[in-house]
Amino acid sequence: MDPTNRALVLHAAHDLRIGSAPAAHPGPGEVAVAMSRGGICGSDLHYYHDGGFGMIRVREPIILGHELAGTVTEVGQGVSRVKAGDRVAINPSLPCGLCRFCTSGRPIHCTSMQFFGSAMRYPHVQGGFRQHLVCSEAQAVPSGNETPPEIAAFAEPLAVCLHAIRQAKSVAGAKVVITGSGPIGALTLLAARYAGAREIAITDIAPKPLEMALRLGADATINVKDAPDGLDDLARDKGQCDIAFECSGTASGLAQAVSCVQPGGTIVQIGLASDLSIPIAQVAAKEIALVGSFRFDREFNWAVDLLRQRLINVIPLLTATIPFDNPRAAFELASDRSQAMKVQLAFD
Amino acid sequence: MDPTNRALVLHAAHDLRIGSAPAAHPGPGEVAVAMSRGGICGSDLHYYHDGGFGMIRVREPIILGHELAGTVTEVGQGVSRVKAGDRVAINPSLPCGLCRFCTSGRPIHCTSMQFFGSAMRYPHVQGGFRQHLVCSEAQAVPSGNETPPEIAAFAEPLAVCLHAIRQAKSVAGAKVVITGSGPIGALTLLAARYAGAREIAITDIAPKPLEMALRLGADATINVKDAPDGLDDLARDKGQCDIAFECSGTASGLAQAVSCVQPGGTIVQIGLASDLSIPIAQVAAKEIALVGSFRFDREFNWAVDLLRQRLINVIPLLTATIPFDNPRAAFELASDRSQAMKVQLAFD
Amino acid sequence: MDPTNRALVLHAAHDLRIGSAPAAHPGPGEVAVAMSRGGICGSDLHYYHDGGFGMIRVREPIILGHELAGTVTEVGQGVSRVKAGDRVAINPSLPCGLCRFCTSGRPIHCTSMQFFGSAMRYPHVQGGFRQHLVCSEAQAVPSGNETPPEIAAFAEPLAVCLHAIRQAKSVAGAKVVITGSGPIGALTLLAARYAGAREIAITDIAPKPLEMALRLGADATINVKDAPDGLDDLARDKGQCDIAFECSGTASGLAQAVSCVQPGGTIVQIGLASDLSIPIAQVAAKEIALVGSFRFDREFNWAVDLLRQRLINVIPLLTATIPFDNPRAAFELASDRSQAMKVQLAFD
Amino acid sequence: MDPTNRALVLHAAHDLRIGSAPAAHPGPGEVAVAMSRGGICGSDLHYYHDGGFGMIRVREPIILGHELAGTVTEVGQGVSRVKAGDRVAINPSLPCGLCRFCTSGRPIHCTSMQFFGSAMRYPHVQGGFRQHLVCSEAQAVPSGNETPPEIAAFAEPLAVCLHAIRQAKSVAGAKVVITGSGPIGALTLLAARYAGAREIAITDIAPKPLEMALRLGADATINVKDAPDGLDDLARDKGQCDIAFECSGTASGLAQAVSCVQPGGTIVQIGLASDLSIPIAQVAAKEIALVGSFRFDREFNWAVDLLRQRLINVIPLLTATIPFDNPRAAFELASDRSQAMKVQLAFD
Repeated sequence: MDPTNRALVLHAAHDLRIGSAPAAHPGPGEVAVAMSRGGICGSDLHYYHDGGFGMIRVREPIILGHELAGTVTEVGQGVSRVKAGDRVAINPSLPCGLCRFCTSGRPIHCTSMQFFGSAMRYPHVQGGFRQHLVCSEAQAVPSGNETPPEIAAFAEPLAVCLHAIRQAKSVAGAKVVITGSGPIGALTLLAARYAGAREIAITDIAPKPLEMALRLGADATINVKDAPDGLDDLARDKGQCDIAFECSGTASGLAQAVSCVQPGGTIVQIGLASDLSIPIAQVAAKEIALVGSFRFDREFNWAVDLLRQRLINVIPLLTATIPFDNPRAAFELASDRSQAMKVQLAFD
Repeated sequence: MDPTNRALVLHAAHDLRIGSAPAAHPGPGEVAVAMSRGGICGSDLHYYHDGGFGMIRVREPIILGHELAGTVTEVGQGVSRVKAGDRVAINPSLPCGLCRFCTSGRPIHCTSMQFFGSAMRYPHVQGGFRQHLVCSEAQAVPSGNETPPEIAAFAEPLAVCLHAIRQAKSVAGAKVVITGSGPIGALTLLAARYAGAREIAITDIAPKPLEMALRLGADATINVKDAPDGLDDLARDKGQCDIAFECSGTASGLAQAVSCVQPGGTIVQIGLASDLSIPIAQVAAKEIALVGSFRFDREFNWAVDLLRQRLINVIPLLTATIPFDNPRAAFELASDRSQAMKVQLAFD
Repeated sequence: MDPTNRALVLHAAHDLRIGSAPAAHPGPGEVAVAMSRGGICGSDLHYYHDGGFGMIRVREPIILGHELAGTVTEVGQGVSRVKAGDRVAINPSLPCGLCRFCTSGRPIHCTSMQFFGSAMRYPHVQGGFRQHLVCSEAQAVPSGNETPPEIAAFAEPLAVCLHAIRQAKSVAGAKVVITGSGPIGALTLLAARYAGAREIAITDIAPKPLEMALRLGADATINVKDAPDGLDDLARDKGQCDIAFECSGTASGLAQAVSCVQPGGTIVQIGLASDLSIPIAQVAAKEIALVGSFRFDREFNWAVDLLRQRLINVIPLLTATIPFDNPRAAFELASDRSQAMKVQLAFD
Repeated sequence: MDPTNRALVLHAAHDLRIGSAPAAHPGPGEVAVAMSRGGICGSDLHYYHDGGFGMIRVREPIILGHELAGTVTEVGQGVSRVKAGDRVAINPSLPCGLCRFCTSGRPIHCTSMQFFGSAMRYPHVQGGFRQHLVCSEAQAVPSGNETPPEIAAFAEPLAVCLHAIRQAKSVAGAKVVITGSGPIGALTLLAARYAGAREIAITDIAPKPLEMALRLGADATINVKDAPDGLDDLARDKGQCDIAFECSGTASGLAQAVSCVQPGGTIVQIGLASDLSIPIAQVAAKEIALVGSFRFDREFNWAVDLLRQRLINVIPLLTATIPFDNPRAAFELASDRSQAMKVQLAFD
């Protein structure tokens, strides 16, 4: 452990401390990065508030963080794609390359995936909320030195949403509904618009996220808490939407998606949750395809490209940037949906 | 009402009476059929035991029955595809031809579907458990005079399963699991085999249906009640099956399907049920496609062809044939999974 | 015939005359339109220069024109979607609604399609290069009174390209090559960009169209005449592109597409041509999917929406607007690829 | 070279000699096989008659043969799936496992594929028409000791056809046409039937292959040479078939496929050929998908399973078995379509 590499360590629910991470030089094929920004994700909040989600529990101290951007400080032997001084977005996934999924072109499903800041496996994979990080060359994706790190740190959640767009097969020209207007719902809105969706409605139970969605270009926003009949128009005649993106991870969000999608339509499930109740008779009778979407694959580099070229503008989503040594303030703000969309930690 | 056209009328749960149906001559484009056999379906049993299922309730006396075969007795003006004396299987669906689904090639989703013996709509659509039935020409599909009506009356449930096969896209060469070995599970097994599935495992909670499945050619049968770890082999390493057909309409069946299907695989939901709990995190993380399957379209005529040519042998599924004027015995036997697979009523 | 309704009539190759069309009031469900602009399409040029293409021949005088925009002057009984004074883009397709394709949701393949200005059927369907036109209400799509007709007249060719995008299934994030940079190639470029294509290369044999493509945002332009090895980079290692749009209708364009698409990739064939030679061994060995794309369906209304909202900017494509009573000048200019992209006739 | 391992070596067109191959013991992970049967394939005939096909030319002496079955004689270190005495079918493909196609689950497109008896690469990959062969363990697939080698030697061409079936997505219930009734057409017929095709028509220009197809269960056989209007019924109303399998590798076969497939239908191209003329206007206007199919992947093991269980009966296809030291007789017979379907060489 090196006091020059301070890190944010979660010991248990609500027990978040500034600790330190090992300092290391990059080995062959590796890169050292001075961290600039780390976005707080919904899963980080679950770890913080509940010590985990579903069957995934924090069982040992874990450095959180997987929405990361920084600057390369040193490269190991054989590294050619990046050099010291390059700004990079960090791809938090490191598939093994050897399992039956990796060798058949499906690294997303790698049985030994090392994903930064995840308690899915034990020992946990330590994350990127730290001052210095060593990762493999392929994980450090140049984001362009004109791209500020607060933008580059959106690459990871944007990649999640771009992958969801691809799971939907054909978004161009489609009528879309998004259930849940948190950071993932909002980025899915931007991604669906970018992919040529014709009309996009979005739902939530709070006014603030819907105001943001409207600002980001949603064609309609529906507060399903205040206006229980707000979806009647989208749900009429067996449903008017071609595609739903379920971003709430709630049974009510899923039920809304089922009611709004027309027969033969598609629901992409992005939100993670424990078991949910699903109106299965409607899924069967309307012959809906409910398709899961998990993380991303090559969409990470695509996300970096889009951010670098400013083809998708994520800046409105950034609520606040808070020094990492004040983590409680950052995590509490990030948890308050009436105030925050995305909160980032600053490490520089 | 005509006493020469006796019918089986459900007045309320457990209140099944022999009544009478209107006697009629076929109008233009219509056909009169003397009924021979009517199979008792799971939905008939739901009406009988519970007065409905989900939100569908019996609200007025209804003649049940939609698995029907008989002989044409008279044809109306302009009818050319069948003639008096022809044996027919009866397609119980009559889409309107005018709604947005009918005019876009999706009659399954017709908003004014007339489906024999269904309480989905009100007034209910009267069914075919009666001595004489008038239907449109297209609904009376010649089954060949060498095909006994007890075989032809399987056309409807077989069509349901063939449609499910088509919803799965590519069954040929696939490793398949079927959850639930009732009549629909068993016919799905036969249909999947016919469509070239490479390996088929099937589950149930009772031994009798599994014995039948084995006799029908299942490669493996798993009693998930007696052997809770019976699916461990199919579920290992994120799942070994390409496709699951969920025929149980239960949360445990759905959970089994989710666990056995490999990442990127498909679950076809055939079983109808009220809301079910679904392990949504696994659906998302494994990027499973859960696809609904509802009734059938042109698969009805295909089913008749297969039965006519004896390419699928349904006879082992027929447990008993019981005169329709003893309906209670028939419905009680049909409800006893330890004894019965398919029970048919005889009307001749 | 009414001298107040002058029209452009092709009698035979190169025999283009100002004649007159019948003047008519709209019947029930119909709309009368004062024409403003009519774009000259490649097929119009084929009729003009060669008296047809492939097996389609001009066999009687025909009013050409199917890229049309104007202003409603009068509406028939029961018309509610448009009113006099509305600016409209004209959808030149009128499917019969009765054939097996119309009734199964595939009106593009209507066996009795009435398509304005087409010699495919005999008697020919008269087109819209005229001062006044009566069409069905559904064909007159409001383009917004702030949308100038020179923009609205791009709806038809844009719809062709949007349909091609949908035939490609998933353009978002894809690496695309377009062979042929004429008006359809250029609009496909805009449509593919709109649908989220990640990289777009485009080929042609002339410098002018490629300059235009560059101005429209192509990532790479390749003059395959001047630089025969210009595609080497896209073709290396069995091909680097996910999708090709073949817009040239030539054997060399098709061969380029085959060489640039990676194994398992898709070629969408938009360009129409007589029989072409195809490198079938490569199609088989690379397991390419060559998918046809023909005209459009609901993409017409989508195209009008996109133009109305200025989400796709077609103005750079408009080379010149020429009064319709000087047709020869217009057709000669439109035929000169070194000068013209799209030439429109003015009727007002 | 070892005189105890005699082999069939092609030195140039028509110059087929009995030579010898190196004798070797299996290394780690390898298996030695005493060859029993080797089927003569169309590509072998191309090498024999023309010294190659398309751009593929025989440039050095090559041992032909890739439809192989024999008995394991010795296994190398670490081999566990087979043992001496096991009868095996030989999978002639050995992908590299390292290239971008292998590592993304597409070994069919391996850029360094070692395929027995193929002159595609230089130095050529030596084939299996020899008395003894050493191959990797994964290539020696146990075919069951009750399966005679003349059946097991059909695994390779059957795998080609099963792969084509999978390329067609959904054959179950489909109306199918096969163009070309040689060995690949005939095996495709058997495979399509096995996968649940509803109706299968097959074409050829010679009577013998069509007689065989009828015997194998084709619903209709059409001699397109004798009866040029024989396809009129399948081609009417824009085409009646859902799927075509093009097995002739000829322009006329491809044109037949295009005419018989309905709008939106699929043609799977199996036949390899030099460039062919294609009616591209019809492909575009009917929005046909022409999909290539190349060799096979895991379908090889599936083919062995089907043969082992006798679920597909290939025996009627076997015209003759001829000792390998009389190769000229075998190759001449195999080339005579009026007499031969499949000719095998005996090596034991």
